[in-house]
Amino acid sequence: MPSIKEFEKIIIGIDPGTNIMGYGILGVNGKKPDMIAMGVIELSKFESHYMRLRRIYDRVLSLVEQYLPDEMAIEAPFFGKNVQSMLKLGRAQGVAMAAALSRQVPITEYEPRKIKMAITGNGAASKEQVQEMLRRILNLKSEQLLPQLDASDALAAALCHHYESSRPQIEKGCRSWKDFIAKNPQRVK
Amino acid sequence: MPSIKEFEKIIIGIDPGTNIMGYGILGVNGKKPDMIAMGVIELSKFESHYMRLRRIYDRVLSLVEQYLPDEMAIEAPFFGKNVQSMLKLGRAQGVAMAAALSRQVPITEYEPRKIKMAITGNGAASKEQVQEMLRRILNLKSEQLLPQLDASDALAAALCHHYESSRPQIEKGCRSWKDFIAKNPQRVK
Repeated sequence: MPSIKEFEKIIIGIDPGTNIMGYGILGVNGKKPDMIAMGVIELSKFESHYMRLRRIYDRVLSLVEQYLPDEMAIEAPFFGKNVQSMLKLGRAQGVAMAAALSRQVPITEYEPRKIKMAITGNGAASKEQVQEMLRRILNLKSEQLLPQLDASDALAAALCHHYESSRPQIEKGCRSWKDFIAKNPQRVK
Repeated sequence: MPSIKEFEKIIIGIDPGTNIMGYGILGVNGKKPDMIAMGVIELSKFESHYMRLRRIYDRVLSLVEQYLPDEMAIEAPFFGKNVQSMLKLGRAQGVAMAAALSRQVPITEYEPRKIKMAITGNGAASKEQVQEMLRRILNLKSEQLLPQLDASDALAAALCHHYESSRPQIEKGCRSWKDFIAKNPQRVK
């Protein structure tokens, strides 16, 4: 795999949680994506909520400084069980985002369903299916693909962002091919 | 008022919101609190959610660097209208907290009811009543006390933290004087 300096673009994917946070670093040359790193930040060992937030901030910042990503993609569910858990999730997302914002890394968020759709073609795919598709798309050996599903979810967010940002500009803002054709009738032959 | 170097302790109070964020800086000498600064961070002019989060991070960080607070007190409601608004509030809290965490400033959060109780003796006091009590306790002239209620709420969080952290250690963990007396019968004369 090339060194990080040889990639045209580097994307950091984050799957934030309050017990475990996943990350994945993706390098892109041309249209070809390569996995640079993936891992998890264990948080459950810290009892204090603030220690967890601090750990997220410190680790995400050190990843940003190590891999110098051009962009951040974050998996962001919009609905949760209750207001309490959403407040905690929002804080975890907020400190991870602050680490990116402090280094001028732009952030894009994706709903879990959108990421699953981009990777597997099925918005309701299981995390295991997402992991298996990542293995194939990125040509990963079994020892490269970490078993933790939070890590593969984060890598999937980065890959989803790569697909989204490398789509032709004109297509953006269209919800489907039907919508695209309706908006661009001159491009139908 | 003394310069910030002459205070034994400086507390920054934050009242985070997604449209407007209030802050108040309190200096303490002995047991005497003084208002150093108060203000608001206007966010409604930024359309993008990320621009707002970035603004919060940048401004809170610059306040931390300017006033070198020893501690941060944050007003943190635990219940909200819906999961969506709590996620956004959590993110706003998270980036403000990250600014403190990045400079090793310890954070304590207080529920709005607790702050109102500490300042006015009434957990259901109005924001205007809190403001009026701050004016009296801190001996503020009318031109010093900003009219924005978010700013006075933030200052109230800082003052509440001062009261909480300067209470005798033995009293901590007791819910009321009745409780205190029950736990410390030897101290009743």
